[in-house]
Amino acid sequence: MEIKQPKGTKDTFGKDKDIKDYIISILKKNFEIYGFNALDTPAFESYEVLASKYAGGEEILKEIFKFKDQGGRDLGLRYDLTVPLARFITMNPQMKLPFKRYQIGSVWRDGPIKLGRYREFTQCDVDTIGSKNLIADAELLSLANKIFNELSLKYKFLINNRKLLDDVLIKSGVKLGDLTRTILLLDKLDKVSQETIKDELRGFLDGKTIENILSYLKFNFLELKNEFKNSEGYKELETLFNYLKQMNVRNFEFSLKLARGLNYYTGNIFEAYLIESEIKSSIAAGGRYDRMINDFIQDPEKKFCAVGISFGLDVLMDALKLKKEKFESKLKEVFVISINRDKEALELTSFLRNNDLRVEIDLMNRNIGKNLDYANSVGINYVIFIGDEEIKKKRFKLRDMNSGKEELLTKEDLIKKLK
Amino acid sequence: MEIKQPKGTKDTFGKDKDIKDYIISILKKNFEIYGFNALDTPAFESYEVLASKYAGGEEILKEIFKFKDQGGRDLGLRYDLTVPLARFITMNPQMKLPFKRYQIGSVWRDGPIKLGRYREFTQCDVDTIGSKNLIADAELLSLANKIFNELSLKYKFLINNRKLLDDVLIKSGVKLGDLTRTILLLDKLDKVSQETIKDELRGFLDGKTIENILSYLKFNFLELKNEFKNSEGYKELETLFNYLKQMNVRNFEFSLKLARGLNYYTGNIFEAYLIESEIKSSIAAGGRYDRMINDFIQDPEKKFCAVGISFGLDVLMDALKLKKEKFESKLKEVFVISINRDKEALELTSFLRNNDLRVEIDLMNRNIGKNLDYANSVGINYVIFIGDEEIKKKRFKLRDMNSGKEELLTKEDLIKKLK
Repeated sequence: MEIKQPKGTKDTFGKDKDIKDYIISILKKNFEIYGFNALDTPAFESYEVLASKYAGGEEILKEIFKFKDQGGRDLGLRYDLTVPLARFITMNPQMKLPFKRYQIGSVWRDGPIKLGRYREFTQCDVDTIGSKNLIADAELLSLANKIFNELSLKYKFLINNRKLLDDVLIKSGVKLGDLTRTILLLDKLDKVSQETIKDELRGFLDGKTIENILSYLKFNFLELKNEFKNSEGYKELETLFNYLKQMNVRNFEFSLKLARGLNYYTGNIFEAYLIESEIKSSIAAGGRYDRMINDFIQDPEKKFCAVGISFGLDVLMDALKLKKEKFESKLKEVFVISINRDKEALELTSFLRNNDLRVEIDLMNRNIGKNLDYANSVGINYVIFIGDEEIKKKRFKLRDMNSGKEELLTKEDLIKKLK
Repeated sequence: MEIKQPKGTKDTFGKDKDIKDYIISILKKNFEIYGFNALDTPAFESYEVLASKYAGGEEILKEIFKFKDQGGRDLGLRYDLTVPLARFITMNPQMKLPFKRYQIGSVWRDGPIKLGRYREFTQCDVDTIGSKNLIADAELLSLANKIFNELSLKYKFLINNRKLLDDVLIKSGVKLGDLTRTILLLDKLDKVSQETIKDELRGFLDGKTIENILSYLKFNFLELKNEFKNSEGYKELETLFNYLKQMNVRNFEFSLKLARGLNYYTGNIFEAYLIESEIKSSIAAGGRYDRMINDFIQDPEKKFCAVGISFGLDVLMDALKLKKEKFESKLKEVFVISINRDKEALELTSFLRNNDLRVEIDLMNRNIGKNLDYANSVGINYVIFIGDEEIKKKRFKLRDMNSGKEELLTKEDLIKKLK
């Protein structure tokens, strides 16, 4: 029997897990500051829900890990957190709006494995449901801005609008029925050469249309104003940029090329990238999707317009690892070494732990020297010695394992020093 | 299409999720204070690993959610966190010992649904691997004691030892080959009547043996000393009780009836119960299992002796809900209402959020009255009004939504007041 993790999965332990938990704590704290509430949903959903035509679409279906329960029900591991959100809203249609929820959880896709691409990964999704107000869009970008600042990451947001992109493409000569496939191709412009994209566009667009598109793509936001100031998408971007300024968010630029692969976006779309970094994947992305949940629910009132952002936990972990900063567990690590005073060592250990210090004590019956070696090898910050002398004096010898400096301290002073 | 969660699963939101996150934060904090490090493993494992004869045993096999990936590999959702731990140790045999890890994660069992019993539930496991020292056992009980105190739960630990139980049963007349099935029956003594258990024992034990067992079960720890003071199990309990006293853990009692169903336990075993509570399930349980990981790994040195405890997150959630205390999100909820001063309202909102206050602003274009109604209905703690007057005076009107009291404060005083 070969004992290992399943293909495309991994264990997370030690420094990686510290970084993961640190990022999640920053995300969670700020999601709540911005008024979002946490939701947990099951790891699997009924297959019918996952495969709904209003959910992820054809290409995701074959990547679902599918199974049956003993009652013969068809189930599948969730491949994103948006379908469970839509299912949750369907089951709770009377909820107060806006419904601001976040969810941090694993998702699973039975797809090809690449470097940094796993079959189990964590999504961190934040969505505002039920508000058409573009302040909701701006809030998400402001939230991301605060998070990236706290993580000391230099980044910029690229922002576009799907309605504006549609209008530009139509004005260029693209027919309504060709919009989606044109957008899906433009979305690849950063990954594939322009020539390749042009070749593929020639399959269904004439040369003039393609030239029009490519020349518009060079325009900045102001240069588009003359021709598109009455486009709803253009106006939405003006409003959004205005809100961002009022919220003091500055690291963004307009990018007409930004398309976002998923075809359920309907308005503003955005992606955040690191600058001055070897990491090229986006660290967060999202946009407005006013139709998807309404279609899923088949709500006649169409109340459930939505805007969301998703943070890439794995890419954020990679970014923080590259910074080579030390992610010390917030707690200093203390090791108590008994010099033939096991009872008192145990009492001291309990006392320190009851004061919320992280303390370990020998469990391997090692001698003093071996315990010091162990403390050194696992990166213990402080060692406390306790023997006859220490008990008589009611003072304990504290050794700083980095500097080697030693001092004699009372129990109370140990707490003060180590807190 | 029926849109709901799969059978035996649930969503967690609102107050339930607040309680869940609160308990997890207390668990996590204290696991780390006691020197344990977090491990994440994949949700699924290869089916071969899950079905290993050294893992969960026959009865669990049929409750595994089993599936294949596109490459035809047999996989299954994990049904506990111990098998993934054994698999992790097998893959990292050179780790420094003791290996102290905790894991908080979902597990899945395709079993019958009962009240409070789900097919997806969270386990919170803490294990020390590689130490024979019974301080490791005592640490786990001390850890649980600290956690239950912080959660303000009144509880007691029942403690027994599998070797002592074996010795008592053998002295009563039970043959070696009948030990396991005798223990599994005794384990049910609290759930089923003594007569039923006696009937079942009569199937393979004679009357005298059964009488011996039942009379020993009435003995307290001291009363057993005379006959069993040389039993290794008795000595282990004496040592453990001694350590617990040194660690100032007092809420425990010896219970020879305690058997713990799983047959992989080898030494001290323990279960914690609430006292003065309608909840009868254990809130934490565990014990020493020195053979299981060694057998799984087939380690010739038998280095990987182990002791662990598992906390029941769902039953702890139920216990805290019964206490009817309010689990307010630690952050006060603030709502900013613009009186025709949207720009300044947005700036103020950003300012407060940048000071880590939880702040919301209208996203539904409601008027002042409707916004106040909304704030009231969702339990907002404070409302801040911002209009011409406020901007001129650079003072903002803060209304305490509980008391109705209002005061005029500068931006800086708002922070001080609301922090």
